[in-house]
Amino acid sequence: MSEQPTLAQVAAAAGVSPATASRVLTGSVRVSTSTRRQVYEAVSRMGYVRHRAPRGSVSSGAAAGVTVVVCDQLPRLFTEPYYARLLAATGAVVAEHGTHLMVTTVSPTSSILPALSGAVLLVGARERHPLAIKLCTSGITVRNIGRPPHDLKLPYTDVDNRDGGRQAAEHLLLTGRRAVAAIGGPPSLPAARDRLDGLVSTLREAGVADVPVAYGDFTAASGTHATQWLLRHAPGLDAIFAASDLMAAGAIQALRRAGRRVPADVAVIGFDDAPLARRTNPALTTVRQPVEEVATIATRLLLSGTTGIDPILPTELIVRDSA
Amino acid sequence: MSEQPTLAQVAAAAGVSPATASRVLTGSVRVSTSTRRQVYEAVSRMGYVRHRAPRGSVSSGAAAGVTVVVCDQLPRLFTEPYYARLLAATGAVVAEHGTHLMVTTVSPTSSILPALSGAVLLVGARERHPLAIKLCTSGITVRNIGRPPHDLKLPYTDVDNRDGGRQAAEHLLLTGRRAVAAIGGPPSLPAARDRLDGLVSTLREAGVADVPVAYGDFTAASGTHATQWLLRHAPGLDAIFAASDLMAAGAIQALRRAGRRVPADVAVIGFDDAPLARRTNPALTTVRQPVEEVATIATRLLLSGTTGIDPILPTELIVRDSA
Repeated sequence: MSEQPTLAQVAAAAGVSPATASRVLTGSVRVSTSTRRQVYEAVSRMGYVRHRAPRGSVSSGAAAGVTVVVCDQLPRLFTEPYYARLLAATGAVVAEHGTHLMVTTVSPTSSILPALSGAVLLVGARERHPLAIKLCTSGITVRNIGRPPHDLKLPYTDVDNRDGGRQAAEHLLLTGRRAVAAIGGPPSLPAARDRLDGLVSTLREAGVADVPVAYGDFTAASGTHATQWLLRHAPGLDAIFAASDLMAAGAIQALRRAGRRVPADVAVIGFDDAPLARRTNPALTTVRQPVEEVATIATRLLLSGTTGIDPILPTELIVRDSA
Repeated sequence: MSEQPTLAQVAAAAGVSPATASRVLTGSVRVSTSTRRQVYEAVSRMGYVRHRAPRGSVSSGAAAGVTVVVCDQLPRLFTEPYYARLLAATGAVVAEHGTHLMVTTVSPTSSILPALSGAVLLVGARERHPLAIKLCTSGITVRNIGRPPHDLKLPYTDVDNRDGGRQAAEHLLLTGRRAVAAIGGPPSLPAARDRLDGLVSTLREAGVADVPVAYGDFTAASGTHATQWLLRHAPGLDAIFAASDLMAAGAIQALRRAGRRVPADVAVIGFDDAPLARRTNPALTTVRQPVEEVATIATRLLLSGTTGIDPILPTELIVRDSA
């Protein structure tokens, strides 16, 4: 790698003070979304990494490559647009470093550990995932995409899922919705829990105490089923927040079949801002998560063996037609 | 692995004589498409493999897993439907064997060789590919998907690309087309050459000597560009054969923009029978290649370390509305 910029240079490039840049990078103080974005964009552009001396281990570094270990089923790599975005960005950083990228999907009981070489980017690990737990103590350099479940101690790079849920709730409140329901992702996945928590706690503060929740697995089909369940159990709902765009697309379909107009009768907000969000009818209001930025920063930190920093990138509500 | 069926059992399951089954498996004699399909279906169903004692090497077998090495750019894994089909089927066989699948995309000069463990399924290798050439002499168990370029000595599993081109040509001739043009894939890829050769030689035998050819890279955009070129250089064309469905979809789009009706003015035939072929307008007449069967048989042969057999699976013209 080329010589790394200093914190002062990063701060200058971001247009903030070194103290503010430091606060963003240590994650210790709440700073504004736009400031965080500026600092992380500068980090991403300049390749700044905060150095922590590795204890008793040499960083495996670029030479041995990066393996992206996805805790999901193989066909989902191709049907869930999140993975294509994540892997394309990871691949670009890996190529910049002149090394190679391997991808594998694993079940919780996979015996892949001995076959792993280089550093590992772990994606989609849920609680009580035996392989993920083994990885933590394997000596392999690992970084998690997303805040890891409480039983995994790993450096990570995340997006502010909770704040995304908050933004969705505020938009719904401001547009007069009060009977808000939610379609959550798998509860064992911290990202899914955080999105829901952000939504529910914001609604509660505003006096909306009862938020019916159905759970899906991020697929469109599960969004459809969850919506049918919600319509039976909370027929008076006037808004649905779904924890992924695919589930939101499934919700729109189920609402149409049930004769509810979107957004006139029911507002729908998704999460991701996947390419699909522009193609739903009506176009989807959604919380954008900067997948490519997360992948870029995580891969750079992984390749440099940095463990002292767990960036959390801002999410942003994109208002289109569905809410 | 469980005990393997004998050749006689495979022949019985396929409803052919052991001699015929043997001829299919050695690939030495031309047998009918339907017979070949029956035998390979039985092979695929029963897991029959012809044993060749490995010389001086132990089969790396199931324990160390399979790495699919794709000679293409990473984002193409997600935009070219062929890869999703191939990898899903490979993954299913690998899972049956209780082992794991890794996927990587490589450039010709990739230094990934030392990081490869287990057996390798090589996809998309073209002529003069330095990494592919090194793989051949590395001692790693490798099987190529598709007939390898002449500078690579590798066991392979292929589809009958040449016969697919022949079927397309015969359909066009039977429906009265004489001014046939073609959109070929990259000429350094044997599969692309074989499809074109099958078409052109069949047309030539029927007295159609001049077949204008433009080359694409299997993407829809390249099919559009190639069609614009063909319309300038052979404005009287009444049929286009494209060596992939995506290129055929691009051709249909370019023809529509040029005011040519499909199929009234210009017949279009693709190659693949990808899911997309049902969604083009008009629905695409295409040569189906059994991607999942190829992947299944190739992975089984790879995991058993068999090198004496190079199956070639039949292709089949699927007539829809575009030709």
